[in-house]
Amino acid sequence: MKREPILINGSWLQSQSLIDSYRAVNPATGQPLESCYPVSSYDEAVQALTAAKQAAAELVRLPVDLIADLLDLYAEKIDIRKEDIIRTAALETALSVEPRLRSVEMPRTLNQLRLAAAAVRDRSWCHAVIDTKADLRSKYGPLAGPVLVFAPNNFPLAFNSAAGADFAAALAAGNPVIAFSNPGHPGTTKMFAETALEAVRESGLPPATLQLLYQIRFEDGFRLVAHSDTAAVAFTGSKSSGLKLKKAADAAGKPVFLEMSSINPVLVLPGAIEMRLKDVAQELFASCTMGSGQFCTKPGLVVLLQSVAAEEFLKTVAAHFRAAPPGYLLGEGVLKKIGAVVDNFIRRGALLVTGGKKMDGPGFRHENTLLRVSGDVFLAQPQDFQEEAFGSVCLLVYAENPDQMAAIIENLEGSLTGSVYSAENGRDDPFYDRIKPILRRKVGRLLNDKMPTGVAVSSAMAHGGPYPATGHPAFTSVGIPASFLRFTALQSYDHVREHRLPPELRDKNPTGRMWRLINGQWTQRDIS
Amino acid sequence: MKREPILINGSWLQSQSLIDSYRAVNPATGQPLESCYPVSSYDEAVQALTAAKQAAAELVRLPVDLIADLLDLYAEKIDIRKEDIIRTAALETALSVEPRLRSVEMPRTLNQLRLAAAAVRDRSWCHAVIDTKADLRSKYGPLAGPVLVFAPNNFPLAFNSAAGADFAAALAAGNPVIAFSNPGHPGTTKMFAETALEAVRESGLPPATLQLLYQIRFEDGFRLVAHSDTAAVAFTGSKSSGLKLKKAADAAGKPVFLEMSSINPVLVLPGAIEMRLKDVAQELFASCTMGSGQFCTKPGLVVLLQSVAAEEFLKTVAAHFRAAPPGYLLGEGVLKKIGAVVDNFIRRGALLVTGGKKMDGPGFRHENTLLRVSGDVFLAQPQDFQEEAFGSVCLLVYAENPDQMAAIIENLEGSLTGSVYSAENGRDDPFYDRIKPILRRKVGRLLNDKMPTGVAVSSAMAHGGPYPATGHPAFTSVGIPASFLRFTALQSYDHVREHRLPPELRDKNPTGRMWRLINGQWTQRDIS
Repeated sequence: MKREPILINGSWLQSQSLIDSYRAVNPATGQPLESCYPVSSYDEAVQALTAAKQAAAELVRLPVDLIADLLDLYAEKIDIRKEDIIRTAALETALSVEPRLRSVEMPRTLNQLRLAAAAVRDRSWCHAVIDTKADLRSKYGPLAGPVLVFAPNNFPLAFNSAAGADFAAALAAGNPVIAFSNPGHPGTTKMFAETALEAVRESGLPPATLQLLYQIRFEDGFRLVAHSDTAAVAFTGSKSSGLKLKKAADAAGKPVFLEMSSINPVLVLPGAIEMRLKDVAQELFASCTMGSGQFCTKPGLVVLLQSVAAEEFLKTVAAHFRAAPPGYLLGEGVLKKIGAVVDNFIRRGALLVTGGKKMDGPGFRHENTLLRVSGDVFLAQPQDFQEEAFGSVCLLVYAENPDQMAAIIENLEGSLTGSVYSAENGRDDPFYDRIKPILRRKVGRLLNDKMPTGVAVSSAMAHGGPYPATGHPAFTSVGIPASFLRFTALQSYDHVREHRLPPELRDKNPTGRMWRLINGQWTQRDIS
Repeated sequence: MKREPILINGSWLQSQSLIDSYRAVNPATGQPLESCYPVSSYDEAVQALTAAKQAAAELVRLPVDLIADLLDLYAEKIDIRKEDIIRTAALETALSVEPRLRSVEMPRTLNQLRLAAAAVRDRSWCHAVIDTKADLRSKYGPLAGPVLVFAPNNFPLAFNSAAGADFAAALAAGNPVIAFSNPGHPGTTKMFAETALEAVRESGLPPATLQLLYQIRFEDGFRLVAHSDTAAVAFTGSKSSGLKLKKAADAAGKPVFLEMSSINPVLVLPGAIEMRLKDVAQELFASCTMGSGQFCTKPGLVVLLQSVAAEEFLKTVAAHFRAAPPGYLLGEGVLKKIGAVVDNFIRRGALLVTGGKKMDGPGFRHENTLLRVSGDVFLAQPQDFQEEAFGSVCLLVYAENPDQMAAIIENLEGSLTGSVYSAENGRDDPFYDRIKPILRRKVGRLLNDKMPTGVAVSSAMAHGGPYPATGHPAFTSVGIPASFLRFTALQSYDHVREHRLPPELRDKNPTGRMWRLINGQWTQRDIS
């Protein structure tokens, strides 16, 4: 059986691993696709690590503009080849070519790479701080070692381990990347890596700037993150896998950035229910079912007060859920997990409002599913109702009164987002003021009158949040340039001779436009 | 036996714990001091946690200027009482009243509190980012929960858990602190906490803004950091204790900031040896023996090339070491650890140049100790020669040639600092250029022609570094305001109504002077 080659140190090689091989599955048919991919051995992964270590040492000696050039060139080359990539991604994920892959995710992917390139050229991201009196200068600098990127199943392009947000951030910060393909879309990932390799060659960067392995065994992954040459780890995926990886990385003292699970609570206050019932119901439906509900920011839990209007709200949402045809899920594992979570919710006392069953094949689909539970039942076992169902599943919690609603929010685990819908005329404001501080410390991004799906690539984005949504609440995985900071160390220079300083910290502003904090004032000027 | 009271929720209470009691020991006499302190029970610690959680909820609702007022008022009250505090600290630590405690550490402590107050008022530290087009705004906000501070033995004032750098940073970021006294200076810590309580009362902040327990059992500490109400942990101390605490915090997903151990390599390049032998020798001696060598940035390892001059350098340093009277150490544990490390170095092949024995009592002292080892022997077991000896102990590694020196640096573990001495005329520059990138990724602060002791409280300080120096290389524990970021979460506001935004993110600049990054430009202006 011919297997697709892995990319190590600039060469496409046949894996020597005898461990295993696998094929991706077309989620719309349930049938395996043609190409076959190796599960690499630990030794093979260490080979990549060794090459990446060397590349890291070269990268820190090169002008950062070369990294910017690479990112731009890579975007250009992807743009030329994008229809092939989109076709492969559609086969491997069953995500729609139009609008999803072609008009939304691919433009986002290209935009991310170009924004990262611009930020690298601008240099302000590294937060240069200069204290001339103490003769101390600091900035965030590259970890200068290999970053391992483990990618999620749900964004084959924008979070692809070889082209997506983590790749761009790790490289922009100055580190080489070892990409591990998500097993759901190895073909897409390979096409990206092929394109990247061309760009790496043409831009004169070290060949091991990006390397690709498709998969390794769990236990080998844990050893690899703990390897002395590994600089950091980025992981987006399930909580169970993420926590194991975190444990291995933590024990070895490796910075690890995980995005694991999030139920993204939406609080609908009484005034919003009464005055905008239909709109909010429509928005909730759209946010829950977009991409078959397979977004890390899908609203999985809605909290509202018991009322006649709140019952009407449920009916309206349920009608939308029933009317919409369920989309394909990314894989059989996703389908099974949804079934298990829905069953658990029901076993623990939630009532099924609509949906609840998997669909007949071919392909992997599950009915759009809505459940409800009382505040009392929720509070009796709050953790049990916060399992993430990665699909079009939403649980509505009906609180008896504002006190109980506050208690429910107090019992929420960390999420990426939290939304509050309230009356436009201000009548919900006292209620908002009460619950907002509780919600604020539970989420990374707080929204008003807006559903959480749709994560803008903005400098002001926080796509992160308290544990277990992520592993560290001070970082973001989306947003340029803040996402770069995950792959840096804070480095200061004490009494270092001027010509030995990195350009960003010398007296002369390296670009004439870079922002630096000099003696407490942000400025674009030179030090005179 | 009368025990000193603990401070819980604004009241000085007798501990109900039956676990144990202890006395501090005067390191200059080896005799226990009079006062007796309880080892608190887990339940007692949870009581403090519950009160702190409530305080945290109140703190986020109060204007931040009240926190600044408290920090200033606290500094003022310490200043009034400082002679008592200094006297107690001198008894408990055997550190000199003059110059150390009165002229160096106390002014630093007061300065830190006042700088923190000024940064809180200024607000620029929170790094407000506003993207008006996406209607997204972000900043670092308080964790809004209790921060547990475990303090080191070596700075009874400036790193005191109830008054030092971690206390100031956690509170400045908006979080209440539960201080655990270092067992070496509970009396000093109690005096700080008494003073803080007065300031808390007068400034109208919640009584549990600062609480004090002296000690808890290890296993209770691990449970406590994992408690759902704990927001974060700051620890400065030994690597063995730090790693255990890290494991407990990591497993519970709690942000934990540790400063654990550092050998602070000093590289002396050939030109510096030849041209400034006596000066460098004198500086090394002073840096190694200051405070009896009990600084986290004490240079513990010197790397240099074999040469006649390098032998002369060693003789000069050794003469200084021999001539200087050893100072008192902070405790018997410190003394024993030094002996064990020196014995290990010798057993592994290092040669004793001078010192090597503990001194006769009373009190805890160890001879100033210098050892040497060849590059070959070092490289055969590099980790074994990187154990931290917290005292006036220094190991010189003699490399055969530049290649071996590079290999030695490549094999160093993470440290807080790394220093390079080189010729002033530029003849060492090619050598410097070769080793600098290797050293750069091993240390937080890189110095030229300067020893690492002396950690300025500057905005450009990085007092941190790669594992195992600390638990995360992107943070600093010294330096205002950067040290605040340890106790924050990155929080964004998406489409949030203007009047509901925190003042720092509203259109109008809250102070008229705060720096904010608005649409990519740092500015002090309002949004118009």
